Amino acid sequence: YFGDTAHLPYGDKSKDLIKQYTGRIAEWLIAKDCKAVIVACNTASAYGFDAVEEACNQASISCFNVVDPVVEHVAEFLPDSKIGVIGTKGTISSRVYLNRLKKLAPEIKAVSAATPLLAPMIEEGYFANNISQTIIDSYLSKPTFKGIEVIVLGCTHYPLIKSEVDKYYKGKVKIIDSAEVVARSVARKLTESKLTSTAKTPCKLRFFVSDFTASFAKSSIIFFGERVDLTEVRLWDQL
Amino acid sequence: YFGDTAHLPYGDKSKDLIKQYTGRIAEWLIAKDCKAVIVACNTASAYGFDAVEEACNQASISCFNVVDPVVEHVAEFLPDSKIGVIGTKGTISSRVYLNRLKKLAPEIKAVSAATPLLAPMIEEGYFANNISQTIIDSYLSKPTFKGIEVIVLGCTHYPLIKSEVDKYYKGKVKIIDSAEVVARSVARKLTESKLTSTAKTPCKLRFFVSDFTASFAKSSIIFFGERVDLTEVRLWDQL
Repeated sequence: YFGDTAHLPYGDKSKDLIKQYTGRIAEWLIAKDCKAVIVACNTASAYGFDAVEEACNQASISCFNVVDPVVEHVAEFLPDSKIGVIGTKGTISSRVYLNRLKKLAPEIKAVSAATPLLAPMIEEGYFANNISQTIIDSYLSKPTFKGIEVIVLGCTHYPLIKSEVDKYYKGKVKIIDSAEVVARSVARKLTESKLTSTAKTPCKLRFFVSDFTASFAKSSIIFFGERVDLTEVRLWDQL
Repeated sequence: YFGDTAHLPYGDKSKDLIKQYTGRIAEWLIAKDCKAVIVACNTASAYGFDAVEEACNQASISCFNVVDPVVEHVAEFLPDSKIGVIGTKGTISSRVYLNRLKKLAPEIKAVSAATPLLAPMIEEGYFANNISQTIIDSYLSKPTFKGIEVIVLGCTHYPLIKSEVDKYYKGKVKIIDSAEVVARSVARKLTESKLTSTAKTPCKLRFFVSDFTASFAKSSIIFFGERVDLTEVRLWDQL
């Protein structure tokens, strides 16, 4: 895992810059001898995947993003539903979900909305309280989202507010959590390529960040569910 | 004006990284022949001012931060009041306000609280609505802030929620808007140094950013009050 804390959040940055950052990180991961690279951020998947794919292709290793498995899942299993997609400004303005959904399921009805306060809100640990409920209500009550039957959580932070989104819709809208869909897709493709580990002990997880801060160490517990050891790698240091 | 949009927000980044970024920006501004440099961000003032001061001293030009004028103002005019300071996580954990206040007015009673959701909330244009009121109420109702008589808005975004903070306190707490205090302090010092402009037409304002995005162009209107032309300067490009 490499978290680009020196530059986060990506949601507001330009396409060029995101491409440059993700390409550099992919090179670093490949040099660490990874067998596959997952771009585990929707904005980076929208804008930086080409750069990562190029680096991975050169090294003949697999690469994944968090958008395509979700798009394929929705197009295959829910082609007749009205789909709503929420994400950062970068992800939504890229139209990555809408364009790819239309390509796989031309008749699909899909709408999207940028929900830029949700990621910082979750990072601050604000969920399941009156603040998060007010913000979520404000975003989901937009008129364009009226009548949706499926909502795609198009940001890797949003699984943490899945139950609140479910509460807002009173359980009547199907929620697509990209983390689950992507994990299944990666497991399937690694199995097909005979790349799954044969080791008898669980693999060792290693976490790197481009800028170590106490607050990110704290946030990482929220996401990972337990304390993780973060190693700082100054990938952009010019000193 | 140089906005480091390639790296913003600074509130969550490490001291080392902020120092590196602000130092580099100061060098660039000095090379542009500025007669003075203002570090117009509280987190950068807390962590990066040494680097800026060093660069400015070498070039024999004045430099300012947004913390010292406020601390001097409070210590001089409000030394007997209970002071509350709000700001980003970086600013608050640096204790820059509390330490400098204690130094100038050892008897002063001051408390501080990080309010990390306020800056992204303002950047998204969420103010003067039910979301901003809920978030502001949640932060200001912290027990440590009970009985404060003065509140320092310790982030350059916060003047935009001044009226909401005032509403929360029903006009009974004095609000220190750093923008006003700092502007007066800079004008005074430039006058003393005989550095004010003698030109008969208003000076031309020029705005640079390290990463151009449509969303920052939009936010800049919120802050500046009118459309500004942003020129992109890729100060950190390694290509």
